Order: sequence, then C-alpha cells, then structure tokens
Amino acid sequence: MPDKNRTTRDMGSRRGARKAGHGSPSGKPRPGRTTAPPSARAADRWVYGLHAVREAWLNPNRQCRRLLVTTQVRAELEPALDQAQAAGLERPPVEIADRVAIDKQLPPGAVHQGAALEAEALPPVDLDDLGRTAAVRDRAVVLVLDRVTDPHNVGAALRSAAAFGAVGVVVPDRHSPPVTGTLVKSASGALEHVPLVRVTNLAQALARLGEFGVHRVGLDERADTPLAALEAPQKVAIVLGAEGAGLRRLTAEHCDTLVRLPTTGPIASLNVSNAAAVALYELARGL
Amino acid sequence: MPDKNRTTRDMGSRRGARKAGHGSPSGKPRPGRTTAPPSARAADRWVYGLHAVREAWLNPNRQCRRLLVTTQVRAELEPALDQAQAAGLERPPVEIADRVAIDKQLPPGAVHQGAALEAEALPPVDLDDLGRTAAVRDRAVVLVLDRVTDPHNVGAALRSAAAFGAVGVVVPDRHSPPVTGTLVKSASGALEHVPLVRVTNLAQALARLGEFGVHRVGLDERADTPLAALEAPQKVAIVLGAEGAGLRRLTAEHCDTLVRLPTTGPIASLNVSNAAAVALYELARGL
Repeated sequence: MPDKNRTTRDMGSRRGARKAGHGSPSGKPRPGRTTAPPSARAADRWVYGLHAVREAWLNPNRQCRRLLVTTQVRAELEPALDQAQAAGLERPPVEIADRVAIDKQLPPGAVHQGAALEAEALPPVDLDDLGRTAAVRDRAVVLVLDRVTDPHNVGAALRSAAAFGAVGVVVPDRHSPPVTGTLVKSASGALEHVPLVRVTNLAQALARLGEFGVHRVGLDERADTPLAALEAPQKVAIVLGAEGAGLRRLTAEHCDTLVRLPTTGPIASLNVSNAAAVALYELARGL
Repeated sequence: MPDKNRTTRDMGSRRGARKAGHGSPSGKPRPGRTTAPPSARAADRWVYGLHAVREAWLNPNRQCRRLLVTTQVRAELEPALDQAQAAGLERPPVEIADRVAIDKQLPPGAVHQGAALEAEALPPVDLDDLGRTAAVRDRAVVLVLDRVTDPHNVGAALRSAAAFGAVGVVVPDRHSPPVTGTLVKSASGALEHVPLVRVTNLAQALARLGEFGVHRVGLDERADTPLAALEAPQKVAIVLGAEGAGLRRLTAEHCDTLVRLPTTGPIASLNVSNAAAVALYELARGL
C-alpha cells in the first residue's frame, strides 16, 4: 500500500504504525523520538490471549495478518469471527494450531490461552484528538500514568480505564513500556477501545489538556484531601506517578489539585494499577 | 530450639513453617495436603525488594538468616536496621553485596532493587484465628481469593488488603501460588502485616467464617446489586473468583450476597487485583 503514504491523512495517522511494522534496523525500540509507538520487532506484532485477540479481531482499525488458534479456541471465537464477517472486516483465514506451535511464535512464557494474532500496531492517537474528545463530552475522565514501567501495570490500568469509561490513557513515551504482547494481553482487549496516547513531554501534555477544560488531579499520598472529598469537576485527568518515586515535582506542579487515597493500614501505598482502578472507580461514582 | 516443639502452641503454629524451611525430599511443593504453605525450595526462602525486605526485617515473627544489600540500600535501610536493634530482634549481620552477587542468589529476572533477605517462611495462620480476630473487632474485612493463580495478583491484593485495613486474605491451598519471591515482592511488605490463610476447602472455610458472624459477599459481574448499594454489615468477607472463570458455583452458593462492580465501559471486567482493590476501598468507605 505505498500509495497510501501520498495522502496527508494516512501519513499523519499511520506513520507510526507502519514504522512499527517494519522495525528499526537494530531491532531495538527507540523510545522518545516521536509520539508514535516505539518500533517493534516482528515478535512484538503478536497479540495474544483470548480477550485481547477477540477485541483486536473485531476492531476495524486493526490490520490483521495471521490468526493462530487451537481447535477449542476456534469454537469459542466463533461468534466473534461471524461478527467480523458480518461487519465486512477484511480478515485472514483462521489457522488451526496446537499450543506448542503457538508458543513458538511468541516470546518465552507468553500466556496465550490458545490464541495469537499477528497484527499491525494501532494507528497512534494524538493528544489533541483526546483533548477534543474530552471537550465535546459532558463528562470525561483521562488517566495519566507518569513513568509506570511495568507492562502488566499499564495493561491492567488500561483495562480499568475501559471498564470505568475513561476516554484515554496518556503516558510519556520515554519510561513507559512499548505496546507489545505483555501490555496488550494484560489490557485484555481494552487497547482496542481506549486509546493509549504517548507524549514526548508530560508536563506540556497536562498543560494542553488544561486548555481543553480538563481539570488535572494528581494522586499523592502526602496530599491532605482524600479523593472522595474532591468536588469532582466534569472533566478530569487523574495523574499517577511511578511506584516508589510517586509524582514527580514537575508533574505535580502541572496539576490543579492533589488528592490522596484514604489508606488506613500499615502499608500506605497500593500497586499503581490498583490505585488507578480505585481512582477511576471513585471518579465514575462521582460523575 | 527443639524444646519449643514440646509446647502445644508452638507445634500448632510453627509446624508448617519448619517444614517449609527444610523442604520436601523431592524439592517440589505439595499443595493441598495440609493448610500449611507448600514446602519451599531453598531459592524460595528469599524475600527481595526494598519494601518487602524492610518489613520482613522488622517483623518479630520472621526468622532471618542472611541479608544481602548494596551499599546504597544499606544506607536507605539504616533506620529500619536501628529500629530492629532497638526492639531487640535477633538479626544476622548485614552483608554488603553488589547487584550481580544478589542476582545470583535469586530466580532469573527477580526485581530485587538491591535487597535480598533469606528468611524462614512465616508461621501459618489458622482460619479460626482469623475468624476470632474478626469476631472480637467491631468492624472487619476479610479478602477471599478463589483460585487466583498469578502471584503478582495475589501479592498486589495483599498489599491493597493491608492498605485498606483488612484483617486477612484467605486462599484455597490448591490453585493458589506458593508464598515465594514474586508474591512476597508484589505484596511489598504487606505479608508481614496481613495473614495469608491457606485452606483445604474454600466452601467449608466460608461456612466457618459465617459462624464467626462474617457476612460473605461474592463479587460477580452477573449480579444485580452494585457493590456500593450493599447495606454493609460490620464484618464482611469479600469473595473474588479467578479471572475469566469468575466465581465457582459452589463458592457463590456459600455467599450471603452477590454484588457487582459498576463497570460502564466496553470491557466489563477488571484485573482481579484491581477488582479486589476497588472492593476493599468501597468497603473501607462504608465501614
């Protein structure tokens, strides 16, 4: 599809995805150079896990190359396969494979549940797209994760963001994991519904979200106000820092308010994805 | 301390821990045979990660054998080391080691942050001990995880249990991960504060908790009542099933009430540790 590069729209929206598909010469991700996802190795193009594969298969924005499933999973996916066909999605033929054959395509230890899909990375979503989405809605929650490095945590947080109706998740491109199998699997299909927006400079991104009318709320265990006491504005970005380090000074300075979770026990802080889930739950209650 | 075995109390509370320390002849865990933790291999006796090591070092119920830390972590742990000494805890001398030397003691990929502690397993806590704790308190929350197999999830849930003041976490001995490095690290010190109670039969355990006046609440996405609408009783066991499968029929039948989390988005279910965090948060609000 080289001609697609000729249209401005395709150049803007698909450049990162195409790059990810081809990979950099060294095969290593180069985080932080653009707002597009880091270049991915061939092995990183695989989506695996039953939920992740189903949702990717049904996502019109996903270009799918190969689907490998066990006989049993083939049966479980039947409704989704029919649904994609009915929707006229262009999809490759389904390949039946045993678990060992699927193992061989994936990184060691990948928990694929008998389903693996080779697919192009999703087209990157721009921060301003997200800002506009928030601006036109009556209510909107954005989740911001500052330097959360564990792909399980980012994936689980995406899943909670989808479950509680957040409009997007924003991460700094540097110090955030690439969108590869572990993250996609942990997100359990949420990545197909909630855009993960990678930005070069998080402080600038928070400032920009403010221009779209989004109230920026930082979660900080040293804050006085408990989250539940927040006079919840209609459009909120909830900002979480890395575990241990917490919110960086510059990030905190770009928040309108700092709040804390009302922990009571001997251990004051939660796993970051757990903290995100609680915050999203509380905000969904309040909105 | 062989004479300690002569007292009934020590036999009851420490048998499992001693067994775990010595290991079974085959070196393999034998889940489900008793309510004690599975026998652990030597490598499984290591606690690692800064928070996990600090809390274990300060726990009078932990027998510590060796502490390996980097020079930097030695300085960070200084207050905890002083505190343990002031409390008269019997502790081995601190050994300074570089990261590579620590790596060699631990399973591949262990994120130790420059701190590793070789320690005996904690003495097992009996379900009736937990029931009595709940019975004598005005308010108590118990977290029950049915067949959650990922040690990261069980560890993170323990951490949330500690953060929201739960009195204990109950798991079936079979189909739950052993108490080894990954779980202990993910719990981030919570295991030293919140007992992890392993039971042979979860349905019987729920029945027994009921006899102690504990109201058993199952989390089930098919339930009609949202969690927040629950007329929260003073003593609650919140019961979560494995991801995907959800609550087993027999487990659900042993609950007094079933409730759901009010998810709103396209993805209906959360990561199990995230669901546990939200439930514990909501119950802590209500109590």
